[in-house]
Amino acid sequence: MTPGWTGDIHEFDPSATPGFSGGKKEGQERLAECEDALSSLQERLFAAHHGTADGARVLLVVQGMDTSGKGGIMRHVVGGVDPQGVGITAFKAPTDEEKAHDFLWRIRPHVPAPGMIGVFDRSHYEDVLIHRVHGWADEAEIERRYAAINAFEQELADSGVLIVKVMLLLSYAEQGERLMERLERPDKHWKFNPGDIDERAQWSAYMDAYSKALSATSTEAAPWFVVPADRKWYARIAVQDLLQQALRTIDPQWPAADFDVAEQKERLRATIADAPAL
Amino acid sequence: MTPGWTGDIHEFDPSATPGFSGGKKEGQERLAECEDALSSLQERLFAAHHGTADGARVLLVVQGMDTSGKGGIMRHVVGGVDPQGVGITAFKAPTDEEKAHDFLWRIRPHVPAPGMIGVFDRSHYEDVLIHRVHGWADEAEIERRYAAINAFEQELADSGVLIVKVMLLLSYAEQGERLMERLERPDKHWKFNPGDIDERAQWSAYMDAYSKALSATSTEAAPWFVVPADRKWYARIAVQDLLQQALRTIDPQWPAADFDVAEQKERLRATIADAPAL
Repeated sequence: MTPGWTGDIHEFDPSATPGFSGGKKEGQERLAECEDALSSLQERLFAAHHGTADGARVLLVVQGMDTSGKGGIMRHVVGGVDPQGVGITAFKAPTDEEKAHDFLWRIRPHVPAPGMIGVFDRSHYEDVLIHRVHGWADEAEIERRYAAINAFEQELADSGVLIVKVMLLLSYAEQGERLMERLERPDKHWKFNPGDIDERAQWSAYMDAYSKALSATSTEAAPWFVVPADRKWYARIAVQDLLQQALRTIDPQWPAADFDVAEQKERLRATIADAPAL
Repeated sequence: MTPGWTGDIHEFDPSATPGFSGGKKEGQERLAECEDALSSLQERLFAAHHGTADGARVLLVVQGMDTSGKGGIMRHVVGGVDPQGVGITAFKAPTDEEKAHDFLWRIRPHVPAPGMIGVFDRSHYEDVLIHRVHGWADEAEIERRYAAINAFEQELADSGVLIVKVMLLLSYAEQGERLMERLERPDKHWKFNPGDIDERAQWSAYMDAYSKALSATSTEAAPWFVVPADRKWYARIAVQDLLQQALRTIDPQWPAADFDVAEQKERLRATIADAPAL
């Protein structure tokens, strides 16, 4: 399964399931089956690199329109690995303090530490997406931001961060159905905001902004992957697969003991023989 | 199942399974069975309180000797809920900057926001446990810290934080076996540190420090629960149960829509009828 980026977002079919021949049931089974393998790779990443000065780590950036399934990725893919090895950051509208700084200022503190998997639910890409659509930044500023993003991501890659960027590609029709479900179910009302419909009205402008942003920032150091997202189960196995590929690329190994195992066993045995009165 | 605190840690049997009559298999089944209920309560907590100024939240503090199963609680209990609604902080030995401040300075930024479940893997209690055992703080200073902790936790409780403090009670013999397993398995070597045996040598002093600390800081606002931890499966269902009780006490409800549902459905339907050329 290799969703990939070819330059024009309109070339992708949001309802496709590239690289996977099964249906929903098989997809859900596969998600569950692959959880252990992903979890085991994550544990080795943590064991091998956590606490080191410049060890490997993974940064997964997830972008997509409202209801494209970002939350489901967090819950069902990222939620499958040990929470101690993962840091999720949901980037909302910036605060006044964040606005007073360059757009990357609030991003940097959330870059994962060695051994960790960092996940961004929305990201610095909002600054070249919603900002372009609403005209909050002009073309020259957007171009400056593309360059700043590429330099930033190159620096991260050079320091050991394996970056995977995912755009969950939803169709306009499917978004309509998902928003309607949020309106029909009282237990989903909290996820709905009237502003979601205003953003939806700008659909074409958003697709254009995504096409331009992905073209400008899909680099060797930080490639974009367009994942068809009309079928939630497919998007989940696709992202799980991308995470697994990233970890396999790093290929973390159990670190060798930095102590004499036989000697420590001897010390431990002595404490077992001479148990204190408790 | 109500593990509780009566004042003397030696009154508890680390291998007991109070409130649960089944064995390991039944315990593991129960953990899996209760995951959905916990997850559903967590989602409602998030829906009802996230983004509010002073909404409810939960802080779970987990303390215990090396190998007592803190990591397993994070992975198998906390890992069962949506990672977007949880923040785990593992407190390690303090940095030089942290040491330059009062001991609560590094704790405060990790208090959960409204709607969240915050989990501390070790905590400010290290400052009255290892510090007492090693004599890094004298009796007067330890007493000062107890008072500071109680004031801090009372303030948190008053601002909407439901605090649950868990001490995983392991036996000396079981710790010996778990440390030996870490030495015998190369994939566990990374979890072992020769210093663990030095700490083990102070077992009685640690039990004494725990007894004193729990007695001094088990308050109505922030009670301690001693959870027998020689059986990992039992400790997990006990902590899962405590978390569930905490959420049931808050009893979060789906928030009412702050918009006119019928009106928004109408607006949405218009965007479906007039689909843009894509």
